[in-house]
Amino acid sequence: MMFDIGIRNGRIGTASDVTMCDIGIADGRIAMLGEALPPGREEIDATGLYVLPGGIDSHVHLSQPSGDGIVMADDFESGTLSALHGGNTTILPFCLQQKGSTLREALTGYHALAEGNCYTDVSFHLIVTDPTPSVLGQEIPALVEDGYTSLKVFMTYEGLRLRDDEILSTLDAAKTSGALVMVHCENEDAIRFLIGKHEEAGRVAPPAHATTRPIAAEREATHRALSLAEIVDVPIVIVHVSNREAMEEIARARQRGAKVVGETCPQYLMLTADDLDREGWEGAKFVCSPPPRDKASQIACWEGLEQGIFDLYSSDHCPFRFDDPEGKLNSRGKTSFRWIPNGIPGVETRLPILFSEGVMKGRIDLPRFAALTATNHAKLYGLYPQKGVIAVGSDADLVLWDPTETRRLTNEYLHHGADYTPYEGLEVTGWPVTVILNGVVAVDQGALKLKRGAGRYLPRRRSALVGARPDGGL
Amino acid sequence: MMFDIGIRNGRIGTASDVTMCDIGIADGRIAMLGEALPPGREEIDATGLYVLPGGIDSHVHLSQPSGDGIVMADDFESGTLSALHGGNTTILPFCLQQKGSTLREALTGYHALAEGNCYTDVSFHLIVTDPTPSVLGQEIPALVEDGYTSLKVFMTYEGLRLRDDEILSTLDAAKTSGALVMVHCENEDAIRFLIGKHEEAGRVAPPAHATTRPIAAEREATHRALSLAEIVDVPIVIVHVSNREAMEEIARARQRGAKVVGETCPQYLMLTADDLDREGWEGAKFVCSPPPRDKASQIACWEGLEQGIFDLYSSDHCPFRFDDPEGKLNSRGKTSFRWIPNGIPGVETRLPILFSEGVMKGRIDLPRFAALTATNHAKLYGLYPQKGVIAVGSDADLVLWDPTETRRLTNEYLHHGADYTPYEGLEVTGWPVTVILNGVVAVDQGALKLKRGAGRYLPRRRSALVGARPDGGL
Amino acid sequence: MMFDIGIRNGRIGTASDVTMCDIGIADGRIAMLGEALPPGREEIDATGLYVLPGGIDSHVHLSQPSGDGIVMADDFESGTLSALHGGNTTILPFCLQQKGSTLREALTGYHALAEGNCYTDVSFHLIVTDPTPSVLGQEIPALVEDGYTSLKVFMTYEGLRLRDDEILSTLDAAKTSGALVMVHCENEDAIRFLIGKHEEAGRVAPPAHATTRPIAAEREATHRALSLAEIVDVPIVIVHVSNREAMEEIARARQRGAKVVGETCPQYLMLTADDLDREGWEGAKFVCSPPPRDKASQIACWEGLEQGIFDLYSSDHCPFRFDDPEGKLNSRGKTSFRWIPNGIPGVETRLPILFSEGVMKGRIDLPRFAALTATNHAKLYGLYPQKGVIAVGSDADLVLWDPTETRRLTNEYLHHGADYTPYEGLEVTGWPVTVILNGVVAVDQGALKLKRGAGRYLPRRRSALVGARPDGGL
Amino acid sequence: MMFDIGIRNGRIGTASDVTMCDIGIADGRIAMLGEALPPGREEIDATGLYVLPGGIDSHVHLSQPSGDGIVMADDFESGTLSALHGGNTTILPFCLQQKGSTLREALTGYHALAEGNCYTDVSFHLIVTDPTPSVLGQEIPALVEDGYTSLKVFMTYEGLRLRDDEILSTLDAAKTSGALVMVHCENEDAIRFLIGKHEEAGRVAPPAHATTRPIAAEREATHRALSLAEIVDVPIVIVHVSNREAMEEIARARQRGAKVVGETCPQYLMLTADDLDREGWEGAKFVCSPPPRDKASQIACWEGLEQGIFDLYSSDHCPFRFDDPEGKLNSRGKTSFRWIPNGIPGVETRLPILFSEGVMKGRIDLPRFAALTATNHAKLYGLYPQKGVIAVGSDADLVLWDPTETRRLTNEYLHHGADYTPYEGLEVTGWPVTVILNGVVAVDQGALKLKRGAGRYLPRRRSALVGARPDGGL
Repeated sequence: MMFDIGIRNGRIGTASDVTMCDIGIADGRIAMLGEALPPGREEIDATGLYVLPGGIDSHVHLSQPSGDGIVMADDFESGTLSALHGGNTTILPFCLQQKGSTLREALTGYHALAEGNCYTDVSFHLIVTDPTPSVLGQEIPALVEDGYTSLKVFMTYEGLRLRDDEILSTLDAAKTSGALVMVHCENEDAIRFLIGKHEEAGRVAPPAHATTRPIAAEREATHRALSLAEIVDVPIVIVHVSNREAMEEIARARQRGAKVVGETCPQYLMLTADDLDREGWEGAKFVCSPPPRDKASQIACWEGLEQGIFDLYSSDHCPFRFDDPEGKLNSRGKTSFRWIPNGIPGVETRLPILFSEGVMKGRIDLPRFAALTATNHAKLYGLYPQKGVIAVGSDADLVLWDPTETRRLTNEYLHHGADYTPYEGLEVTGWPVTVILNGVVAVDQGALKLKRGAGRYLPRRRSALVGARPDGGL
Repeated sequence: MMFDIGIRNGRIGTASDVTMCDIGIADGRIAMLGEALPPGREEIDATGLYVLPGGIDSHVHLSQPSGDGIVMADDFESGTLSALHGGNTTILPFCLQQKGSTLREALTGYHALAEGNCYTDVSFHLIVTDPTPSVLGQEIPALVEDGYTSLKVFMTYEGLRLRDDEILSTLDAAKTSGALVMVHCENEDAIRFLIGKHEEAGRVAPPAHATTRPIAAEREATHRALSLAEIVDVPIVIVHVSNREAMEEIARARQRGAKVVGETCPQYLMLTADDLDREGWEGAKFVCSPPPRDKASQIACWEGLEQGIFDLYSSDHCPFRFDDPEGKLNSRGKTSFRWIPNGIPGVETRLPILFSEGVMKGRIDLPRFAALTATNHAKLYGLYPQKGVIAVGSDADLVLWDPTETRRLTNEYLHHGADYTPYEGLEVTGWPVTVILNGVVAVDQGALKLKRGAGRYLPRRRSALVGARPDGGL
Repeated sequence: MMFDIGIRNGRIGTASDVTMCDIGIADGRIAMLGEALPPGREEIDATGLYVLPGGIDSHVHLSQPSGDGIVMADDFESGTLSALHGGNTTILPFCLQQKGSTLREALTGYHALAEGNCYTDVSFHLIVTDPTPSVLGQEIPALVEDGYTSLKVFMTYEGLRLRDDEILSTLDAAKTSGALVMVHCENEDAIRFLIGKHEEAGRVAPPAHATTRPIAAEREATHRALSLAEIVDVPIVIVHVSNREAMEEIARARQRGAKVVGETCPQYLMLTADDLDREGWEGAKFVCSPPPRDKASQIACWEGLEQGIFDLYSSDHCPFRFDDPEGKLNSRGKTSFRWIPNGIPGVETRLPILFSEGVMKGRIDLPRFAALTATNHAKLYGLYPQKGVIAVGSDADLVLWDPTETRRLTNEYLHHGADYTPYEGLEVTGWPVTVILNGVVAVDQGALKLKRGAGRYLPRRRSALVGARPDGGL
Repeated sequence: MMFDIGIRNGRIGTASDVTMCDIGIADGRIAMLGEALPPGREEIDATGLYVLPGGIDSHVHLSQPSGDGIVMADDFESGTLSALHGGNTTILPFCLQQKGSTLREALTGYHALAEGNCYTDVSFHLIVTDPTPSVLGQEIPALVEDGYTSLKVFMTYEGLRLRDDEILSTLDAAKTSGALVMVHCENEDAIRFLIGKHEEAGRVAPPAHATTRPIAAEREATHRALSLAEIVDVPIVIVHVSNREAMEEIARARQRGAKVVGETCPQYLMLTADDLDREGWEGAKFVCSPPPRDKASQIACWEGLEQGIFDLYSSDHCPFRFDDPEGKLNSRGKTSFRWIPNGIPGVETRLPILFSEGVMKGRIDLPRFAALTATNHAKLYGLYPQKGVIAVGSDADLVLWDPTETRRLTNEYLHHGADYTPYEGLEVTGWPVTVILNGVVAVDQGALKLKRGAGRYLPRRRSALVGARPDGGL
């Protein structure tokens, strides 16, 4: 037989193992692993490189409306292009239900936006903002059957947040249908209260974004979400955890017997609330929720990645532009931090940051990197074993990392739509020099080899956390 | 190329992944993984079976003197034969230093006992009982260089136990040389105190073994061992943890930043202190240290396996015979429980118990099973990636499990030297029907295919816990 | 000088000390403590008795509407009479704001109900159900000035519960005005959810009251209340805590630096959820919220009293009658537990239960009894040093306990309006044989000596938890 | 009747209450509390002053040998004089058993040293260094009968430390005889290990005293002591706790049901390890064990005083002189910190520091001050109700504090034998202006009114922690 691609002499990393062998790719899938495999039509010499599963970023916002006519800086084209260059082969953006509309209607819109525009494979989480009986009782079960197997709910943001009774109903619908629910945990009422106090006191600059969203508000909502899930008896995912207190809630819930998965993001490892106090208007570029905390929280989040509080490491990519010709963002944001849209870009920098700060600095090993960036996402969100693993039969989504390449992150070389990166100037060691998507070289030494639209939509199975475990699972 | 063995249609489980593919074995190693591989000289149809890494049991006592002229019921021949039939391809027995002798002297003896007698691969942990300056300063560094990379110290048992200053010195020598130290954590003085109180009160039957070794004595020693390691700043392994309080010490130590690995054993999942109170003299057959606790402790230990407090699941195989023609054991043991030798057999039943109770009952998945029973042992004790993994280039140590086979455990069919099993009558689902050692079928459908002496001695690398992490590791 | 009353030879217990001396009472106050005091017009021989501060029960419901036209079984006359016979000299019932009405309007009503009818001194907590800007901004500050210095909010019960934003506003108003807020912590939405599930499943008998109000719902709301108080930065009181998990929330909040006071009640020490499953309709008589839990929770609550998680021990007296000629309660309650009014009687049995089970069984000492039943209530709710203490200058509210008297509790001999006691048949050792209110013998050997209306209304100072501490305080 | 002394218009503070009344003293005891009491032969106007129980310092070292011929800087004369001026009326120094000698022999010596020399009442704790069977089986029971009801054991200091088996035997003897055991918790072996490492590295200056006695060594020994007491099932006292981790051990032990009392000292509230690094040789003056830690530990210790982890606040007075004409201390100490005697003076500054930093800064109230400095010591060590309380019948040991007097602490005005105070220059608000011992004015406005030898020896009852509780107790 003749492989389409043969990869030689790489150091192959999976979520448990590191081995040296060749990889034979055929028909878009990994056909063979072995020593001295027969030749491929295309040969890649991976000497000195790590060959890892293509990154899966399961927390990405694209083309989502953000209030006041502000549009996110990335659509599916630029967002997936940026993801691909950052070593990702699959991303899971959100599909936002509009109040008064159905989830199907929302999906129709997002599919239309994605169709023909993607550079990575994509699939959608459904954000539930209007959990009517028909949404919960009819739509969600049918959508799960159709491969939309994950939901997200918000405990913050007026217009998006659900009340406790709505969260309970949604969790219950998820339990019945086999969907998995992700929760953004911050207590909206507490935040509103503090925003009021801050504005009364004239504290309206970006640092107030952090002080109005204190750890207590995140810890409270985290414990509440976990308790509601405990009452319904259903697994949940706590996304973008920023600090030790919220982490302890996850640990305590597990001790009570709960199935809960935790996620953290680069901003909680690399930034602090001090960044919101950067000179001039620069601090506004670090407004995201939960806000970055302090050095001790960074240390805590690293521990969480190392010790298993976190099984997911995602970007929460949510990009905005501050060159804002119509002045929608800056002029109003300057009247009060509350009008600054919440979110920062990160889909392209997520993996290099963890590779450099985590693997190269000895905090985590390659298998943990693979698990945190790809395998666990695939298992948790029903893409496994098709995605997230280097194994015979799986899709040939591979990234070749050069551990010797050192780069300084700068927005100039990134491919997202935002006009800045929060990590400007950060030196990283290790770079995804080659990306293979579904058995096709997509990026090679920084050069794009793929056509727009090569990325496919992926229907998904139920989560391993929900389903049968003996055969695999998280 | 022609493989020595081809395994077809199996469900392959590693510590992270479950895939369907063929395995090609050549020259004792795994040469290829793929679909529709070329034929092997020998073909094995694994349809419906799980193909898992051969079990590694890193906590086994063989041919060790046990006081009063009592001899362990297993030597290297029977012990490794029993291990093999239980799905293991590597075991790590202990080599016990005699006071006044060197570690080298002890090794000479154990090597002589093992040489030519083994049915599995073996390697030795060194039990340090006499940490003289020359043992610590000269012998240990040299032995680590020679591939003896793990030490064990006891905090209990008169004659074996080390004082705190000796533990500190041994940990310090381990740190310097790159060895990894395992600790048996029970406070000997507290136990002596309670034994005195029990004997004064005439409480001399087997249940007193459990009440004189309370959880507090284990928790105390566990915290002390962890604190001493913290002071020396070196990783340690806490072996055979029996209860939640000791587990919490491990969790707390990790929160303080310690590198610590926890181990539990089947007896803490399946037995309780009530078993020591079985009728007649039967209770004596459940005397081991720490003793089994209660149902709540079993639940805690299961949680520890599921949630990562424990990375190791071992047997602590330590077999004795109660048909005791010379009356060494029974007659003295009946005068007081203190004379009953501490230990129970388990090297052959370890894996079927975890497979049945863990995997088949949905508590853990196949990857976790592979990690707990093989991969983590290999990584922790310096045998990785040669052992403990199904990957190209690794030794072909494989076990085919039939998840549909149900057996009732009974001593009649076991191969160890003990004259009983503590699990007599336990029904298990799932059985290791075929065992392959270094590319050779060793057991097939219960029939031994291997000659005595086929098992080799394995020198070992430094532990992944001690060494460089970017390339792999635990 | 001639005292009005001289008490001789008693063992005097305060919240810290136990001493032997005489007490001289004049003008309703304690005038002198000493050995061999001059005679009083009335002499009481307290030989063999404990002389303790009159009980203060700071958690009592009287004449409160309970939905569906159901009236509480005690008004101010019967409620205070029952309290007095149980060794109390002051009680703090609640004054319930009606939605759409002011707090002042509610107070007018309750004062009218109390005026001229009381057998003990009384003061009111204000239940806030409609926290409008004028209630928060004008009424509460003015009411605090007028001596109404404590508020209560509910997180459960439709019609009473406040949303988080309302709780935050109320806590903020309390902070500004110096009021202290008590919180009933149970998550209403979770309870509603579970009630729905239970009714769907046809589980409508009284035990469902306990299973629809699980510990998780109480723990969640407790943590939330504590977090909201942390965000506002104001002390709070967590009332009627029933279990260890909620207790741990209090301990954790204190570790974060919060000022929080915990209260538990006899029902959480003496009853379990099994009582709701008593034969026939008897279980309905144990419906209260939170529900009693299990034996382990009882042990936990005892620990809380001994070790200081709880500083208050109150009755949460909330009586109903099950001889119900109009059938308002029973007929509807039998269609579903949700219609059974929540509450049990206890103002008369509170002290004998703690004396017998706590002091006489050696769990707590006399000073702790005095603190838990009187002194801490006085300090916390602004009655100190007028009330709650045996000290020169304080009101002569005293109870003489005979530690040798053993009684079997039975409803026949109680003075409340309920037609049962949950503690029917419980044998208690120790009884309040003489009660002195404001220097007047009110009950002597079970005989009432006081006229209706002798009890006064007490305006209160700000809580010691809120105010200056060097001079005293909790 | 005519009182010996009448105290008017003071604000009287006990461990629970603060009241305004007169005190009548007769025959050395408090005879009466009341308003407008009849006149005394001597009248004291306490207007504007707090009248508190005389301080009891239950942790004081006097005339104890300290190795290398170094003598403590205080004998019973200077030590009690210093204590008295600092507001104390009773102190409990240690009586140190010499190895090979009996406890009685040691007592004979200490009684001789104390007899006729004391300015306060005194009683002795017995330090057990040689727990032979006859000491444990005969001496201790007899000594407890004779009123020596407390023992102390060391887990550190070569020559003093007991091994675990000795601690267990001593705890067991205490349990049998009704004695109470105090434990100095630091792991000697760990400290020796670290001293060796430091000396090897040439780190011999005073700061090494702190780094060789890390928190881990204290936490370890604390948990061990608590575990040994748990195994024997006997209460214990953990003395001079310096940090949060050791505090958590106390909290955890209580959750397991243990009776344990914690003590902290001024040095852990006011000093840090940085003080050991003061210029020149000054750091040596801050060498004590455990060493002061850091700011976070100070905060933790304050929390412990406020929230009840600590029930005792003592000085651990242990004074040395650095003007050292024979050079015994300085010259050897400069070769290595290990030769600097461990201990700092503090018996005179203990109370003003807590009054100023605790009461006046609002961290604790007057009752808590009274409890921590007097009442709890009396209850715990069997002096209650004779000592430690302002109650009718108790010894008239009283201190009048002027809360308006501000002083700067300076060694010049202190009465101890040390030639420095670690608190030099600290400004304190509140001063014990008048001290009354057994009904006699001992210090008035700084002037000594008492003759040497006025202080008596106090035999003691069993601890309230050991004995019956209904009548009183801690």
